[in-house]
Amino acid sequence: MPFDTNLVSSCGRTLLSREKPEIVFITPTNEKFTQLADLTRLSQTLSLVSNIQWIIIEDRAQKSEKLVKLLNRIKVPSIHLNLKTPPAFPGRGWAQRNYALEYIRNKYQSATGNELKKIVYFGDDDNAYDIRLFDNYIRNVKRIGVWPVGLTYGGVVEAPRVNQDSRVVGWNSLWRPDRMFATDMAGFAISLDLVLNTNATFAASCDKRQLGPETCFIELLGVQRGDLEPFGVNDQPKEVLVWHTRTE
Amino acid sequence: MPFDTNLVSSCGRTLLSREKPEIVFITPTNEKFTQLADLTRLSQTLSLVSNIQWIIIEDRAQKSEKLVKLLNRIKVPSIHLNLKTPPAFPGRGWAQRNYALEYIRNKYQSATGNELKKIVYFGDDDNAYDIRLFDNYIRNVKRIGVWPVGLTYGGVVEAPRVNQDSRVVGWNSLWRPDRMFATDMAGFAISLDLVLNTNATFAASCDKRQLGPETCFIELLGVQRGDLEPFGVNDQPKEVLVWHTRTE
Repeated sequence: MPFDTNLVSSCGRTLLSREKPEIVFITPTNEKFTQLADLTRLSQTLSLVSNIQWIIIEDRAQKSEKLVKLLNRIKVPSIHLNLKTPPAFPGRGWAQRNYALEYIRNKYQSATGNELKKIVYFGDDDNAYDIRLFDNYIRNVKRIGVWPVGLTYGGVVEAPRVNQDSRVVGWNSLWRPDRMFATDMAGFAISLDLVLNTNATFAASCDKRQLGPETCFIELLGVQRGDLEPFGVNDQPKEVLVWHTRTE
Repeated sequence: MPFDTNLVSSCGRTLLSREKPEIVFITPTNEKFTQLADLTRLSQTLSLVSNIQWIIIEDRAQKSEKLVKLLNRIKVPSIHLNLKTPPAFPGRGWAQRNYALEYIRNKYQSATGNELKKIVYFGDDDNAYDIRLFDNYIRNVKRIGVWPVGLTYGGVVEAPRVNQDSRVVGWNSLWRPDRMFATDMAGFAISLDLVLNTNATFAASCDKRQLGPETCFIELLGVQRGDLEPFGVNDQPKEVLVWHTRTE
């Protein structure tokens, strides 16, 4: 059996065994002065990751020429979609993430076996990703994984709180830690199974609850707090592999 | 003659012929909430570039443990220095860039032949670099190269203005385009020769002129505007391979 070791390193990249799931990295993006800088930098980060597909959804009536050029140039397998946010739709990126979920549900509805071994992650265009996030955290998720996210206001690290059995029992977060799933968008990933077996979306009804998109979406996946698989929370200090940043 | 082709691609990296100069990438850095996010992202970008050495200078009395760990982990050849900014020294990064120049002058004072084939570039920790910058622009500099820099305020591109003979005759820049060298720190690179044959620094006397560090430093190198080698200015629209960004 070739390739059945866990990780094989070659050419500075990590080659994954056939046993490890592919990552589906979903990025909504909108026109802004920093867009090309952000996406260039992100595409270079993703070029260091094997076994990944990048779904990028522009908030735009047509695909932009500059993104077509970028995605043609880079070596990351990518799917380029676009959807102009419908009027009165809540927050930026919601409709685009839903569109990507719809794309995934259509594409994989008849998938079987290894084709189903994928983990879905929502990675915004302006965050900072340590490439260890992919192989140390995301790739090891079974159903739903959660981990610390570095914020840049005040150097705060938002993270799940765990008990002695490493079960998630709450959250250290700046805003509304009483939410059932008080994670940042960059702080969780889910199995393709969970996407295919639910109709969960970033729904307009989520907006009415005014608790942000994350907790509502995860609740719609039908998981419980006890189902969460925490990563990176037992290290002291907690190892941060993703930062919720914004480019100015 | 092996290796005498210009560029050989292997393993997704660019292998350079022996004829192409090494890049010396100088990064001053100071403690801030975004520091580790910025340096992680930058180190990953530089890991995609062959034939580079990264000189990183902390504005700190001691080297920080987090940077020691980062530089040990990554595969980019790096030199870790530290210098606390002396009291009343002008702008952030000035003293650290000078310290790197001093390090370079000491290290290469007796260098000969191919050892001298290096290009020095000042790359701040929070800018966004398209990796084509390294092989398309920096690596092709003979004495001093200049190119467009994307700003994120207003989507402006600052760039040298050239005449029909591709000579630099002025600058499109937001602030004081009347400066002799109205470039951003990210918009130029110089040969090691030019560093070794001058005593140019980011001098305190530069601060008194209130024209920023770039033009003063380049004037101290003893070059004239006519010596500048422009890159990327004839394309329409101008191709931007580096953005002066800041992480929030």
